Amino acid sequence: MPNITLEMPTWLSTLLPAADYVLQNDEEKMALAVQLSAENIKRGGGPFGAIVVDLDNNTLISAGVNRVVATCCSIAHAEIMAIVSAQQSLRVFSLAEGGRSTELVTSAEPCAQCFGALHWSGIKRVVCGARSEDVMAVGFDEGVKPKNWVEALRERQIDVKRDVLRAAANEVLLAYKSSGLIVYNGVSDDTY
Amino acid sequence: MPNITLEMPTWLSTLLPAADYVLQNDEEKMALAVQLSAENIKRGGGPFGAIVVDLDNNTLISAGVNRVVATCCSIAHAEIMAIVSAQQSLRVFSLAEGGRSTELVTSAEPCAQCFGALHWSGIKRVVCGARSEDVMAVGFDEGVKPKNWVEALRERQIDVKRDVLRAAANEVLLAYKSSGLIVYNGVSDDTY
Repeated sequence: MPNITLEMPTWLSTLLPAADYVLQNDEEKMALAVQLSAENIKRGGGPFGAIVVDLDNNTLISAGVNRVVATCCSIAHAEIMAIVSAQQSLRVFSLAEGGRSTELVTSAEPCAQCFGALHWSGIKRVVCGARSEDVMAVGFDEGVKPKNWVEALRERQIDVKRDVLRAAANEVLLAYKSSGLIVYNGVSDDTY
Repeated sequence: MPNITLEMPTWLSTLLPAADYVLQNDEEKMALAVQLSAENIKRGGGPFGAIVVDLDNNTLISAGVNRVVATCCSIAHAEIMAIVSAQQSLRVFSLAEGGRSTELVTSAEPCAQCFGALHWSGIKRVVCGARSEDVMAVGFDEGVKPKNWVEALRERQIDVKRDVLRAAANEVLLAYKSSGLIVYNGVSDDTY
């Protein structure tokens, strides 16, 4: 069995601030996640971007974009790429290890898979741009996610903030739809 | 951003049948998944194993074991390792591509994350050994999974079969518990 490799796009690092740059607020963080989602479309990827931020000093730990098609991996959503990248760069299997506080800033609300993955990620706070209904409106499937997913995360001490730059994040989704690019595993696609 | 690498254990291949070996029935498939879960404990991993089987000829496509601690990756559950390994070896982002039919045989029912991941995996059938309550009984957290997860998958044309060699699968969970090894992110662990 060969190892699994999920390649990060080479252009990703060029869009990121310096490691010691302090992100000022949720809007600045989301603007970066949305910028990554927009750039990923231009590079043939899905319209999703995410970053992981150290809540103690508001610096960037990692970033991810949707790499499902590029890496032959249905798991490679932007949130997963960002979370695993952060874990591996810090060499921890939970981002909460050592009392660290981190947040996931994602251009769209998590699907059923990424909602599930949050449980064991060690992420303490999730900031979302576009709503799940925006994602579904352009043809993507969000999966069967508990209706009370926000409360479910909060009960597990994972804070959730929604609708940060929602309009800007949704614009990228709409641009993707109008581009006619593949909406893999979309609800309207009977193949999957 | 460096690429993400999830290393497969070197011993895994030594326990697998030849690529053209025909697995006879669900019990034989599950026996292999359970064997992998038991071997993974001996190698310091979590008590979970899974395989992906081609339903057209009942041959093995891939196998996985829990690699969360070894790879610094909270996502690296046995099911994810097996699914992504299958996708990358077939060079598809959905195992349903080209009309292929595959099944996931897992030593324990999927947690919230792996349940979510099934939506986009292209897997057509899931065969489970131990129940979620068995997994929780030894201290693992299954996350917030829809109560009707079996029906939810079936509605999406993913068949589910439960309780195949449940007792044998549960024995591995109990052996893990009595070994005193780490139950990472367990419900009883307040750190995460």
